[in-house]
Amino acid sequence: MTTETKTASHVQQHGKDLLARRYATLGPHSPLFYKQPLELVSGSGVWLTDAQGKVYLDGYNNVPHVGHANPAVAEAIHQQLLTINLHTRYLNDRVVVYAETLLSTFGGALERLFLTNSGSEANELALRIARQHTGNTGVLVSDFSYHGNTTSLAELTTGLTVREPLGSHVRPLRIPDTHGVAEADVPALLQQALSDVDAAIASLQAAGHGVSAFLFDPLFSTEGLPQLPARYIEGVAARVREAGGLVISDEVQSGFGRTGSGMWGYQMFGMEPELVTMGKPMGNGHPIGAVVTTAVLLDEFGQHNMFFNTFAGSPVSSAAGLAVLRFMEQEDLMAKAAHLGDYIRTRLESIAQGNANVGSVRGRGLFFGIDIIESDGRRRTPAPDLTKILIEDMRERGVLISRVGPHDNVLKMRPPLVFSKAHADVLLEQLELSLRNLF
Amino acid sequence: MTTETKTASHVQQHGKDLLARRYATLGPHSPLFYKQPLELVSGSGVWLTDAQGKVYLDGYNNVPHVGHANPAVAEAIHQQLLTINLHTRYLNDRVVVYAETLLSTFGGALERLFLTNSGSEANELALRIARQHTGNTGVLVSDFSYHGNTTSLAELTTGLTVREPLGSHVRPLRIPDTHGVAEADVPALLQQALSDVDAAIASLQAAGHGVSAFLFDPLFSTEGLPQLPARYIEGVAARVREAGGLVISDEVQSGFGRTGSGMWGYQMFGMEPELVTMGKPMGNGHPIGAVVTTAVLLDEFGQHNMFFNTFAGSPVSSAAGLAVLRFMEQEDLMAKAAHLGDYIRTRLESIAQGNANVGSVRGRGLFFGIDIIESDGRRRTPAPDLTKILIEDMRERGVLISRVGPHDNVLKMRPPLVFSKAHADVLLEQLELSLRNLF
Repeated sequence: MTTETKTASHVQQHGKDLLARRYATLGPHSPLFYKQPLELVSGSGVWLTDAQGKVYLDGYNNVPHVGHANPAVAEAIHQQLLTINLHTRYLNDRVVVYAETLLSTFGGALERLFLTNSGSEANELALRIARQHTGNTGVLVSDFSYHGNTTSLAELTTGLTVREPLGSHVRPLRIPDTHGVAEADVPALLQQALSDVDAAIASLQAAGHGVSAFLFDPLFSTEGLPQLPARYIEGVAARVREAGGLVISDEVQSGFGRTGSGMWGYQMFGMEPELVTMGKPMGNGHPIGAVVTTAVLLDEFGQHNMFFNTFAGSPVSSAAGLAVLRFMEQEDLMAKAAHLGDYIRTRLESIAQGNANVGSVRGRGLFFGIDIIESDGRRRTPAPDLTKILIEDMRERGVLISRVGPHDNVLKMRPPLVFSKAHADVLLEQLELSLRNLF
Repeated sequence: MTTETKTASHVQQHGKDLLARRYATLGPHSPLFYKQPLELVSGSGVWLTDAQGKVYLDGYNNVPHVGHANPAVAEAIHQQLLTINLHTRYLNDRVVVYAETLLSTFGGALERLFLTNSGSEANELALRIARQHTGNTGVLVSDFSYHGNTTSLAELTTGLTVREPLGSHVRPLRIPDTHGVAEADVPALLQQALSDVDAAIASLQAAGHGVSAFLFDPLFSTEGLPQLPARYIEGVAARVREAGGLVISDEVQSGFGRTGSGMWGYQMFGMEPELVTMGKPMGNGHPIGAVVTTAVLLDEFGQHNMFFNTFAGSPVSSAAGLAVLRFMEQEDLMAKAAHLGDYIRTRLESIAQGNANVGSVRGRGLFFGIDIIESDGRRRTPAPDLTKILIEDMRERGVLISRVGPHDNVLKMRPPLVFSKAHADVLLEQLELSLRNLF
């Protein structure tokens, strides 16, 4: 037995043992990527290293927004941990400076902030605010969405398995997608989609729920990154407001410059939501989330509820959030995302044109995808199994990506925002090779 | 103008400005302690320093469990931040080692773990598990309790103001308190309290809700630290199980050795809950929470729900939790809490005997209180205004404490667990002086 095989066998045994120990503590249902789970032991920027020492380009993870093991974020957290870390019932300037910095990225009436520890907590709070303000309970969501893991959010989950039945106060909307639709047919698609909204609102009103909120991810990422007809969101927002409801933009996926077209995903549209929620990339992995809203809505909620969140807004959470915003600004990451997103899109279009198994190019900025299809010449059908094979093959090639959408056939690529053209070239080259070799 | 007054005026102006800036971002309702909010700028162990350089003994904060700015926790987090921080869809040994270490503090059937980012998220999840398992929705809570800030938890909040009405599926229980009750009357008190439980369960069943869970804080801290009749909790648990419900011990306040009589508050009683939730002290301020449960309940929930929590169980959150457990063990903090708790209790009893404004001594281990009362010779009534004055006076004396209970007249003292006899002596001496001077 050579040293090399000894090592390989040792590493393999370690992985098996670790998986068994995980099952014995966290149980077997906690989700894991890949047929053979991947043990990652270190990271830096857009690179990750596994237990065998193999290095991967991270084309998937949006939580480490300013890069894996970002030293500026680590140092900000470390220094604050060594200074003080307490809840917001005492004054501390960190949370105020962070709140000012974060709110400065918003315009219009969005000038107040509630801090939380996650996107789930943020969406929970936004829905509480909307229900209390409107006196209604009805919620509109897309028909393949996920906004968090609490009871209220489980009751409106349409995009993954939960045991709670869909709430009687929830109406799922089919989100119109112009991919593959002839330009002449888009107005009819839009009209149909808005008629569906009218019908959903009428149904909520008839059932006595009324409309409290329309809750949506501006990228519709769980939904597979559809391309919306122009003015669809504006049309939904107008109808929801007409019915007395509020608009909640869930920026967990689309926020913090991800789309390239603004700091917040809703800025892609001609409307301003009453409530904006955020999470994932906000602290580069430190647990932090928020609800940004108007002074009127914050005051109303605050007057009627003793609302407190122990960890949220602590000096350390604030320092983490602040370090992310400052790093983004120093490195001009939003502008880079826009520029690089355009480059990637162009190259993906060219890949798509040369491959019968690629249906369409999707996404915005640094959240991009292609859908993998099979075609018998007449009909094009989603190909989830091929998609899975492709993702496993990309892992072998040292590139981490995943998949999303109702048919699980849209490649999900949303790397850390410190992704560069050189990184994109590696990803695109391997993707092209993988597509060519497999199909 | 001397330099000194210039500085004092500058500091005062800074505080006013900071408060105004906080109102302009977080709004005016986010709760603050004290008539003049206290700006804390640094901490170390059990000591905190304000913006004027004044030092305070921390007799209040339980989140910095192993001490403010604990260097071992800061270093563990820092090193992990510089190494890797990702969600649990990839394998990483940190979460497994932490899960094993945390679960080793439990006995019996409590051998599986869900990680979350807060106590609110933990209680949300525990209730989801209980509702799904039992097929019932009814919940028993105390009539002055708080378990978190989500919609489901707001619907069963009885101890602070929320706009949501108490859920029709919720029955509040008056928790029996033997303080001031003659020993001969305790059996009747217990019998009455358990009859109330029977009536609440019957009412839930009659309304078609059934019983999903009894959710309680073993210290009943929000409730003002009542002294329970022996076997009350065992009696409630038996009745809830008989009705098909589960018992959820909310250890956010009582866990991690706080009571001195075990790692977990429920260990004060002769029963094991099906679900244990935790939060606050778990990561010394890092946002982390958990649900510990049986393999059967975890498997059932996992089979029917795609449950995932982005931040929870990350290597950094796990490193924070692990550093707290290791520090506790190295410093033998649980045994110290038991020993010091006994000492404090004895001294509080002697303070109470000498002061007509002190009703009774309450609490366990390092969560202790006295209730402040007024007496006209015949009747003893709670004195919330005196309590408030006392807390402000203690602040002037350099000791931070707070108050709790339905009448807001129970002093709330639960210092970091690194509290020593010397620290306790400072707190008790100042408390004695304050009581003597004020009343």
